[in-house]
Amino acid sequence: MGSTCARIAIDAMGGDHAPKEIVAGALRASEELGVKVLLVGDPQQIKAVMPPKTTLERVEIVPAEEAIAMDEEPLNAVRRKRKASINVAMDLVKNQQADAVFSAGHSGAAMAAALLRLGRLPGIDRPAIGTVFPTIMAGKPVLILDVGANVDCRPKFLEQFAMMGSIYSQYVLGTDTPKVGLLNIGEEDTKGNEQALRAHQLLRDNSLINFVGNAEGRDVLSGEFDVIVCDGFVGNVLLKFAESLGGVILQILREELPQGLHGQIGTALLKPNLKRIKQRMDHAEHGGALLLGVAGVCFIGHGSSQAPSIFSAIRMAKEAVDNQVLERLHSQYEILQRGSG
Amino acid sequence: MGSTCARIAIDAMGGDHAPKEIVAGALRASEELGVKVLLVGDPQQIKAVMPPKTTLERVEIVPAEEAIAMDEEPLNAVRRKRKASINVAMDLVKNQQADAVFSAGHSGAAMAAALLRLGRLPGIDRPAIGTVFPTIMAGKPVLILDVGANVDCRPKFLEQFAMMGSIYSQYVLGTDTPKVGLLNIGEEDTKGNEQALRAHQLLRDNSLINFVGNAEGRDVLSGEFDVIVCDGFVGNVLLKFAESLGGVILQILREELPQGLHGQIGTALLKPNLKRIKQRMDHAEHGGALLLGVAGVCFIGHGSSQAPSIFSAIRMAKEAVDNQVLERLHSQYEILQRGSG
Repeated sequence: MGSTCARIAIDAMGGDHAPKEIVAGALRASEELGVKVLLVGDPQQIKAVMPPKTTLERVEIVPAEEAIAMDEEPLNAVRRKRKASINVAMDLVKNQQADAVFSAGHSGAAMAAALLRLGRLPGIDRPAIGTVFPTIMAGKPVLILDVGANVDCRPKFLEQFAMMGSIYSQYVLGTDTPKVGLLNIGEEDTKGNEQALRAHQLLRDNSLINFVGNAEGRDVLSGEFDVIVCDGFVGNVLLKFAESLGGVILQILREELPQGLHGQIGTALLKPNLKRIKQRMDHAEHGGALLLGVAGVCFIGHGSSQAPSIFSAIRMAKEAVDNQVLERLHSQYEILQRGSG
Repeated sequence: MGSTCARIAIDAMGGDHAPKEIVAGALRASEELGVKVLLVGDPQQIKAVMPPKTTLERVEIVPAEEAIAMDEEPLNAVRRKRKASINVAMDLVKNQQADAVFSAGHSGAAMAAALLRLGRLPGIDRPAIGTVFPTIMAGKPVLILDVGANVDCRPKFLEQFAMMGSIYSQYVLGTDTPKVGLLNIGEEDTKGNEQALRAHQLLRDNSLINFVGNAEGRDVLSGEFDVIVCDGFVGNVLLKFAESLGGVILQILREELPQGLHGQIGTALLKPNLKRIKQRMDHAEHGGALLLGVAGVCFIGHGSSQAPSIFSAIRMAKEAVDNQVLERLHSQYEILQRGSG
């Protein structure tokens, strides 16, 4: 690493609320987590949103001339705009000036930039975006991948996602022999679309992972699976649906709980507990996703991310660096490949 | 109709809890809703689960020799087992001895039987399963289709789903100019997989529906869309995920609300309100889905359905019959076809 603290390159221009919220989250992370943040983007815009008294001890601004908008075709944009903030951020990791990169910009562009600048891990055709969902079993999260990098997947991509997810779950989330499931529309082997039917066979025949079968939508939060693989289209729909639920549930509670006199008193008494429920369901607490399969530690946030999500994602990036995720993924994948070869 | 009350043919052998729960739900529907139920299946098994004092006034047992199991390949099974309960039930509708059919068995088999026995509505390539989700806007549900009939869809199928869904939303759910969305991974026109990109173009160019653009996962429950179309794989994953949430949320509430002394008192005071929240989220209250695009009123329940879900689905079938859904769909679709031709 060459540094006592994790160095996180941050695409300050990526996201609906860039650079203001990105910079705010990054500065907080630098202060509270002791990470070094490298803010990549237009220095003028970045400085304009920094409080005047910002200490620059663990904060560095790295100039980038351009940015990639949410509606651009990602691969072309990344190729054309060579000095775009996401490209410059990836280069910092490539040149070992940073240990990880974070962007809340166009996730397709982040993947394209990671692929072009950092390349893939050996044995991986297509990297995936993995995200950790809490389940109803306390302390037993489930890693879902892909949640948006690959909208059209071949079955062998899903097999690779399963292998990477299994390693991540074991070495970062601390799961013994992670239970891997394939997101599908039924438990039976005969259910599913073409892609799922063929992926099921590949997963079943892969002796290097603990494939326990199909996972239906209702199994996602059950805690029965440690890793669930799916294509990036289904995964993204599911992720965004899940993220909207905190607000939906709070609204139902706000409407139903205070009804009647008992309801009003009871709700007043429960105020602190309701606040804790809000936190438990708030997606700002789980704001980052990991790009698995590229030769660097890359985290991606939602376009709508605000400072708390940015902070949370940087914390995840720091944990990934501290836990040597990339090195483990790299070496473990090579071991798995030798085993299967 | 030839009958003063709606006559519902029920596949008594379909579902994980058949025939016991199916029969229990059907008998309750007959008694409370005034519908005639035609219980299709093995008379011995059906009689064995009927209470001895059942009045047979609006209950009829229609013998069927076979049943289709959940792990059978649907089209083959429906063709091979010509006397299977789902086939016999469809024939009752075909022969105008029943006004609607309900099955909690293999949904693929129900669709295959409906296609083979009843046929499709004119202009429809593939029927879809539609289901109504409540949204955060009270009294403003959203119709999602397809939720499982077609796991591999062509873009024009999605366009047909949009047209059928729009009619259903307008004439059954009472929506003025229903807002139609395409389930996708981003708001922008350039986002999505091959299928979604092409479907987006078809929907945008279709002047007969009010297509308002892509709907992301987070938009499903927002109430901003009246109809959301997707392929049956994504829709099924989403549906089953959504159905699992009631239990998940209740568990979070059970864990978090009673903490501390204030929490215990508050929770005790809120008992009736919490019960109402449970009901609002319980999928037994929303237990049926409509098979749209076949030449008959067909409702489908989950394999795991128990008596309350069966009752709820039969109530939906009765409402569809009473509101002349099929006739409206048929005539409206012909008008639309003339308009587009």
